Amino acid sequence: MKRNAPGKVYLVGAGPGAADLLTLRAARVLADADVVFHDALVHPDVLAVASRAERIAVGKRCGKHSTAQRFINKRLVDAAAKHRVVVRLKGGDPMLFGRAQEELDALRAAGIDVEVVPGVTAALAAAADLGVSLTRRGLSRSVVFVTPRVGDGEQPNDWAATVARADTAVIYMGAGEAAAISAALLARGKPSSLPVAVVENASLPESRRWLTTLGALPGLADEAFRGPVLLLLGEVFAGAGREADEAYRRRA
Amino acid sequence: MKRNAPGKVYLVGAGPGAADLLTLRAARVLADADVVFHDALVHPDVLAVASRAERIAVGKRCGKHSTAQRFINKRLVDAAAKHRVVVRLKGGDPMLFGRAQEELDALRAAGIDVEVVPGVTAALAAAADLGVSLTRRGLSRSVVFVTPRVGDGEQPNDWAATVARADTAVIYMGAGEAAAISAALLARGKPSSLPVAVVENASLPESRRWLTTLGALPGLADEAFRGPVLLLLGEVFAGAGREADEAYRRRA
Repeated sequence: MKRNAPGKVYLVGAGPGAADLLTLRAARVLADADVVFHDALVHPDVLAVASRAERIAVGKRCGKHSTAQRFINKRLVDAAAKHRVVVRLKGGDPMLFGRAQEELDALRAAGIDVEVVPGVTAALAAAADLGVSLTRRGLSRSVVFVTPRVGDGEQPNDWAATVARADTAVIYMGAGEAAAISAALLARGKPSSLPVAVVENASLPESRRWLTTLGALPGLADEAFRGPVLLLLGEVFAGAGREADEAYRRRA
Repeated sequence: MKRNAPGKVYLVGAGPGAADLLTLRAARVLADADVVFHDALVHPDVLAVASRAERIAVGKRCGKHSTAQRFINKRLVDAAAKHRVVVRLKGGDPMLFGRAQEELDALRAAGIDVEVVPGVTAALAAAADLGVSLTRRGLSRSVVFVTPRVGDGEQPNDWAATVARADTAVIYMGAGEAAAISAALLARGKPSSLPVAVVENASLPESRRWLTTLGALPGLADEAFRGPVLLLLGEVFAGAGREADEAYRRRA
C-alpha cells in the first residue's frame, strides 16, 4: 500500500526465536507491515507472521561495518516515503545489542515517525530454558548483559572488569571467543570453578545446553554451533545440571 | 476444571504493564488458566486476559519476608493438585527480580511439572519509551540490572560497585532510595553530571519520564510516584531530552 504521506517505521523486537514469544503488539505490527527489513538471524517462523509484507534481509546483528549500517538507515528512510507501515525487525529486543540508536537518529533526522516495540531478550529465554533464575535471594542481585565483540573503529572496552563485578553475567555473541573470555576473567580473579551455562538457540525446539566452568570454557572451541549462543556465568548456575539435556550432562 | 492428575504450573512474565506487551505464549497460557496467582503490581488489563481463571493476588515483587514466600510456594503446590493449568504471574520477566527460584525449587521438590514463560522486562520497555538504546556503538557495550533492595535476612551487597563498572545501569525498585543511590555512586567516583533517566509506569499511557543527573537525583524524593519506577544511568541518556514529555523537560 503506497501513499503520498510518509509512513511510520517500527523498530520491533523479534524475541529470542520461538514465534509465540513475539509480543501481541509485535505480531499485530508485523501482520500489518508493508515491508520488513530483518536481521539474518530472525527465525523464519517469526518472519512468517508478516504475511503480506515484502521481507528483506539486511545482515546480522553484529560485525557489520558502518557503511552497511548507513545503507540500512537510508533504506529505512526511503521505505517510509513509499509505504505506510515499515518494520525493522531485530533479534531479541531492539535496545539491547541491536544497533537501534543509529537507525533512530537517522529516522528522526529525516522527520519520520518512529516507534520502538520491545521484545524478550535472549538471556531471559535462556534462563527459562535452563530453569534457573538470573537473580536469587542471598546469591545474586545484579545481572550484567555484555558483549566482547568490537565493531569496526570501536575501541576495545574492559568488559571483563564489568563481568567480574556482577553477580550474574550473560555474554552475547561470545561463543567464538570462549578461550579469550575464560583467560580474561581468570586474570580478573574469577575462580576456575565458576559455573558457566552455555545455551544455543534459546527458546527453540533445537535448543542445546551445556554446563561447564570458567576453567573448562575453552573446550567450547570443539563445538560446532548452529545458532546464536549465550554464555551465562555465575553461582546461580551451580545447580543447573538437573534441568540439563543429555549433551549438557555429559559435559558437566 | 479439576482432575485427579496433578496440574502444571507456569511461571509467566506479565511484561512491563501494557497488555499487548504480553507474549503470544503468555496470553495463550493465561486464557487457558484455571487459577492465576499474581503480583499486586500486575496491571488489571493483563489480568483480564485470564478471563476464565480465579485470580488471587499474592503480594508485591519485593520486600516480602520468607514466611510469605513459603506460603506462596505452598499455595502453588496445593493448586497443582486441584487444577490443570496454574499460572504464577510476575511483573516483567520471572527470572529477573521475580523470586522465581524459590518457587521453582518448591514445585520441583513436590514433583510438579513447571514451565517458565519469559517476558519483556521493564528496563527494555523504559528504553523504548525514552527512545534511547541501552547499548550504543562506541559508548556502551554493557548493561547491568540491579536492585539495592535487601530482603529480610539478606546481607547488603555492593551494588554500587557493580553499577560503577557498567556502561549503562538500570536500577529496579530504587526510587525510594534515590538520595542513598546518588551518594553511593558519587562515592564510587561517578561524576555528578552523569545523566539519569527516570521512568515511571513504563509502557503504560500514564508513563512519566524525567531526565536528571546523578548529582540532582536526591530531588526525586519530592515526587509522588504512582507506579513502578526505574532509574536508568549512563552517557547514552545524555541526548534523551528530545524525546521527553513536558515534566521531563521542566526538570532537565
